[in-house]
Amino acid sequence: MEAAEYPKASRRLRLGIVGGGRGALVGQWHWTGVRLSNRWDLVAGALSANPETAVASGRDWLLAEDRIYTDYREMARAEAARPDGIEAVAICTPNWSHRPIAEAFMDAGIDIICDKPIAMTPEDCEALAAKQAETGLVFAVTHPYTYHPMARQAREMVAAGAIGEVRQALVEYVQEGATEPPDPNSKPMAWRRDPDKIGRASATGDIGTHALHMIEFVTHLEVARLRADFHVCGAPQDMEDTAFLSLAFDNGAPGSMWVTQAAPGNYCGLRFRVFGTKGGLEWDQESPETLRYTPYREPEQIIVRGHGAGMLPAAERMVLLPRGHGETLSDAWGNLYTEIAIAVEARRSGQTLPEGLLALPGLPDGARGVRFIHAAADSHEAGGAWTDLT
Amino acid sequence: MEAAEYPKASRRLRLGIVGGGRGALVGQWHWTGVRLSNRWDLVAGALSANPETAVASGRDWLLAEDRIYTDYREMARAEAARPDGIEAVAICTPNWSHRPIAEAFMDAGIDIICDKPIAMTPEDCEALAAKQAETGLVFAVTHPYTYHPMARQAREMVAAGAIGEVRQALVEYVQEGATEPPDPNSKPMAWRRDPDKIGRASATGDIGTHALHMIEFVTHLEVARLRADFHVCGAPQDMEDTAFLSLAFDNGAPGSMWVTQAAPGNYCGLRFRVFGTKGGLEWDQESPETLRYTPYREPEQIIVRGHGAGMLPAAERMVLLPRGHGETLSDAWGNLYTEIAIAVEARRSGQTLPEGLLALPGLPDGARGVRFIHAAADSHEAGGAWTDLT
Amino acid sequence: MEAAEYPKASRRLRLGIVGGGRGALVGQWHWTGVRLSNRWDLVAGALSANPETAVASGRDWLLAEDRIYTDYREMARAEAARPDGIEAVAICTPNWSHRPIAEAFMDAGIDIICDKPIAMTPEDCEALAAKQAETGLVFAVTHPYTYHPMARQAREMVAAGAIGEVRQALVEYVQEGATEPPDPNSKPMAWRRDPDKIGRASATGDIGTHALHMIEFVTHLEVARLRADFHVCGAPQDMEDTAFLSLAFDNGAPGSMWVTQAAPGNYCGLRFRVFGTKGGLEWDQESPETLRYTPYREPEQIIVRGHGAGMLPAAERMVLLPRGHGETLSDAWGNLYTEIAIAVEARRSGQTLPEGLLALPGLPDGARGVRFIHAAADSHEAGGAWTDLT
Amino acid sequence: MEAAEYPKASRRLRLGIVGGGRGALVGQWHWTGVRLSNRWDLVAGALSANPETAVASGRDWLLAEDRIYTDYREMARAEAARPDGIEAVAICTPNWSHRPIAEAFMDAGIDIICDKPIAMTPEDCEALAAKQAETGLVFAVTHPYTYHPMARQAREMVAAGAIGEVRQALVEYVQEGATEPPDPNSKPMAWRRDPDKIGRASATGDIGTHALHMIEFVTHLEVARLRADFHVCGAPQDMEDTAFLSLAFDNGAPGSMWVTQAAPGNYCGLRFRVFGTKGGLEWDQESPETLRYTPYREPEQIIVRGHGAGMLPAAERMVLLPRGHGETLSDAWGNLYTEIAIAVEARRSGQTLPEGLLALPGLPDGARGVRFIHAAADSHEAGGAWTDLT
Repeated sequence: MEAAEYPKASRRLRLGIVGGGRGALVGQWHWTGVRLSNRWDLVAGALSANPETAVASGRDWLLAEDRIYTDYREMARAEAARPDGIEAVAICTPNWSHRPIAEAFMDAGIDIICDKPIAMTPEDCEALAAKQAETGLVFAVTHPYTYHPMARQAREMVAAGAIGEVRQALVEYVQEGATEPPDPNSKPMAWRRDPDKIGRASATGDIGTHALHMIEFVTHLEVARLRADFHVCGAPQDMEDTAFLSLAFDNGAPGSMWVTQAAPGNYCGLRFRVFGTKGGLEWDQESPETLRYTPYREPEQIIVRGHGAGMLPAAERMVLLPRGHGETLSDAWGNLYTEIAIAVEARRSGQTLPEGLLALPGLPDGARGVRFIHAAADSHEAGGAWTDLT
Repeated sequence: MEAAEYPKASRRLRLGIVGGGRGALVGQWHWTGVRLSNRWDLVAGALSANPETAVASGRDWLLAEDRIYTDYREMARAEAARPDGIEAVAICTPNWSHRPIAEAFMDAGIDIICDKPIAMTPEDCEALAAKQAETGLVFAVTHPYTYHPMARQAREMVAAGAIGEVRQALVEYVQEGATEPPDPNSKPMAWRRDPDKIGRASATGDIGTHALHMIEFVTHLEVARLRADFHVCGAPQDMEDTAFLSLAFDNGAPGSMWVTQAAPGNYCGLRFRVFGTKGGLEWDQESPETLRYTPYREPEQIIVRGHGAGMLPAAERMVLLPRGHGETLSDAWGNLYTEIAIAVEARRSGQTLPEGLLALPGLPDGARGVRFIHAAADSHEAGGAWTDLT
Repeated sequence: MEAAEYPKASRRLRLGIVGGGRGALVGQWHWTGVRLSNRWDLVAGALSANPETAVASGRDWLLAEDRIYTDYREMARAEAARPDGIEAVAICTPNWSHRPIAEAFMDAGIDIICDKPIAMTPEDCEALAAKQAETGLVFAVTHPYTYHPMARQAREMVAAGAIGEVRQALVEYVQEGATEPPDPNSKPMAWRRDPDKIGRASATGDIGTHALHMIEFVTHLEVARLRADFHVCGAPQDMEDTAFLSLAFDNGAPGSMWVTQAAPGNYCGLRFRVFGTKGGLEWDQESPETLRYTPYREPEQIIVRGHGAGMLPAAERMVLLPRGHGETLSDAWGNLYTEIAIAVEARRSGQTLPEGLLALPGLPDGARGVRFIHAAADSHEAGGAWTDLT
Repeated sequence: MEAAEYPKASRRLRLGIVGGGRGALVGQWHWTGVRLSNRWDLVAGALSANPETAVASGRDWLLAEDRIYTDYREMARAEAARPDGIEAVAICTPNWSHRPIAEAFMDAGIDIICDKPIAMTPEDCEALAAKQAETGLVFAVTHPYTYHPMARQAREMVAAGAIGEVRQALVEYVQEGATEPPDPNSKPMAWRRDPDKIGRASATGDIGTHALHMIEFVTHLEVARLRADFHVCGAPQDMEDTAFLSLAFDNGAPGSMWVTQAAPGNYCGLRFRVFGTKGGLEWDQESPETLRYTPYREPEQIIVRGHGAGMLPAAERMVLLPRGHGETLSDAWGNLYTEIAIAVEARRSGQTLPEGLLALPGLPDGARGVRFIHAAADSHEAGGAWTDLT
């Protein structure tokens, strides 16, 4: 089976960023992905809502002085007016602001790269979708974890029947940061515990949306119904740092999701275990180079990221380095930014890309994440009742 | 902190066994534990309900011909009458028969070692408890996993405050044997799918009871309420091979349990992860020699079974071999049989043992397992409703 | 490919033991192997050269008082004279005494089970061989590590061509006990540093002989020449605690051996890595249940001890328990004692065993170990010169 | 203990590259390091000795057409003449050409970044050193592995006495690429087997120099003497793909080095194990995020890359991402390029850097690598004789 190759870049696209300045880890991810993809130049930014931080951060990143903005509206206007203005903007601000920022840049004709959850409510998502339909712009959502080659390999192996029919699937995303009270000066932590800024769920929205996207991506199934219980297991706070969820997939298979930010010794533990009629697959984002494959009553296999040796084409397409020369989440971000660049360039040039070349999460995926948060919060408020996820 | 030592054996006790013959794995476990403890001679058995299998199995185990029985009632009578009759009997038959067999041997004044679940209903358990109260006999229940030194170490570390207050706890017991239909001639599998022989739950009773015992043992907490969903994820059959449970501990902490026999690549995966306000502990029965300890914001520690180097006295008491010279479930069975021998010998000699020397699971633990099965089945039948576990 | 099964035991053989009493780990191993094999009754012992220790140890092990000896010569005489006398003796004393003890029991017509190194010099070995030829007795040498099923599996996979022709092979045996000075009261440590009692090498003889036996066993090759450097890397002492060796196998492949007792954090780290023209095999005695198999440019395989799923017949024959229910060095000792029992019973009954059923290390293996020690010591004394191992 | 921070970049430096075009992995590394460091713009290149490949590769990397060169001499001349010419050049060509290329760019006043081995002979190294002394230019050598934070952590822990005095040290670098004959069209493999292009050793020069640099870096010791045996263990070829070395460190401790490119299942396995009087340290480049620390008779520790939790300042300075968000060899290259940028900027601005801020491998390290190759080849040719490494 031959896989289409990514088209080569003929130039670097111009990118701006809103949010992500000093003290915000997520900005570092975008920036790393941008650099690793080598398909973008980051040329403009409104890196913080705080003007001083915005300027200092822009200098940290060596932006030209006249493209360091303190207001995203001004940035959208100014960049749209420049002949060398940005072609896409990455939005990595607190959740509540995603919609207005995305709208401002879409109005300026600039393609959108937006963190998840993409908005506060399903209604917000519909408004964004309407505007996207109107403008025809790219709207990419930053689910980087599915850009790990071995997560992609798992998805492809499931499609190829390696484990038969999926019969149960578990996903977890486990961290430790909420075990003790955060630094009172940490702005990134503060907004994550404020429902006006993060929405109806904290950990469930922040990391549970990644877990949902991953397990649906790998299994080719949808979660049809769920049951959620929210808890505070770490330092006292108002919103949940932990959630236990039961899942019912649309093929009838059961599953579970566990997300927590209060599990000492776990850092970025996004893990799945998927079992079918013929075998199982297990993967851990903290050891991303290998995929454990357990065909029933045959020797276990460790598929190692690289060329050949069992890699399937759509996964191998993302392989940058030989085995043993580690790839990690940084490279997954790079892969994501590569696909975004390809999509943006294709839109701008009117090019049609080969079917199945890209797997870019878009507005429908983003909206699904928002509905997931609401379904989980609804279920929790109803004492853990089964709740549809439509 | 000094720990009491186990008293030395002055002789080997005489043991009989009911069930566990050819084709039954559990018999092999009892027998291995017996031999490793070096405190027992296995001298009599009614090793199968099928007379031919009973005889053949007795010869396999090199029992004297006149102590190979084909009927447990006859065995109880005959052994009670001999001057060198058995002092204890191990019952490792299908669940439905535990109660009548235990009663027959208690009536003969013989101490009891019984597999779990010890009976079909809470009422059975009360009847057994009444008879035990009457006779004063030992009634030990075979939960071997807590006799792994590193499971004991986890329990002791929790008690010593190493992880602070327990805030969430996950336990799972994961196997693969139900993935495909069992050999139609396999009697051990057949009764496990027949509610008249196994009771109201299959995998949940078979392995879930071990998971419950373990997580309560390690956390020093009780599961106050639970929610259960039963599923068939492997080959079609009438009883569940998989269950997902939500747990609410009596200190308010949440937790989860997952048991399945349809997860290819998992063999005897009894694992726990316990997180507190100050750290976490993780252990896997398939790698029993090490305990992962993650004090928050300190280097992770790998505690390795052995003498010294962080081992706490009640765990170290069970250590038989130096580090690197593996101990496994066989040794855990040996430790269990050692404690049973000490308890039986103490009862017979009227000796009082030091407080806290033994941690022998008894009738209350067995009865709790039966109530757990009923609570889980009740919850499942009520659509996964929260159900008290009293 | 069908494999012959081990014949069933019709009775337990009677075993005596010399050495191995209180404070000596090796006695515990013999005794554990004996019990796990279920083919022996340990009925007599001269468990220490110190009469008080001999008696106390015999009582620990619940021997009959009249079969607790304080002198091995007396034991040989008395046991030979009894109708229910021992049929074999296990010798687990310091090296220098192996030959006289073995000779005494061979003279009494008793089969021999002897620890390695079996003697101090090649000449000793020839004398023992002459007496064995004369008497026709079994002389088994206790190399238990090759009785791990997954070490056997590696040997069988090499024979089956799984890795092509062997091109290089590394073996190491790494421990930590000599890092700091031993307890001055430890007799087992003291004789290991005294050339009059242990011979010309310490760590090299103690654990290097196991490493040699293993690597030759797995590769089906012989070490033709070697180069050795002895070092003291732990607490100061007169004999080596560490040796680095270069190996030249008889097919021209190079290799290396590293043995040390001064590597903190290593306990019983007997490990091999063997690479051929088509793949590699790696195994670690501290994780004995799995064998890593790396066919070149194919997915890596983890072969897990158990039935089926890639296990080859001669390895599977040794499998006692299902996957996930750990087997360890204790079980390897059990397997070794099972094969010794089969060999002893066959000799006594004049039975002929199927070709290839047993892989019992005997006098030639023991003598090879002694020649290895001398070759290594010769090489070291010659500044690490290449030295033939004949 | 407070550590100096790296100074912030005020602009990106201009970099050129010679070699490293299509088909050459090493170019990808330089380029990745450049981008991750964010302190460089790659603006010019002579990416291949083959003009067509040079042009195609330059376009792949999106260089401006007028700065894609087909001859390095022309590049040195042209870039030196431009006001925006390159400030440093990275040389990643076959070994034989390092010296003339470095000389050409040093003559043009351009700072040097050179792959190892930096030249063919010790005499070449002296000539380069003379020219560096003359010009005062930076001459950085690309040993990226010591820029893994956890390798740095090991070095710092040794310095802090965590393992006491070093008593033995093992290093290995294990790959699989030479197992079968290379693609006959692979230029990168072809020159590596040609002594006129690679020098007196193949695998030993290619990966052994990294192993030497690492073990000396971590132990703070120098290899005083060595013994080497070269072998061809993979597909037949003229130069060694495998070497076994004995090491004698300058404090008297022994050690060993094993390098091979014919070990299937090993990819980039640079690993060390260092043992001292008080503990041990183990690290594997294929799992670079953790360092195993084994203080004698205390619990083992797993130090995980990140902030706090046992990290020492000089290692923590290199930490870019939180725990669980993997860093790998790419990031090590980024760290290396960051330090090179700091050194180049300091030289150009006449700035003095804080003592101990940088650990940049320079000409002395490069020359030591060349002497190592010659010592190993000398030893091999003398039948593995002990040979001084001065």
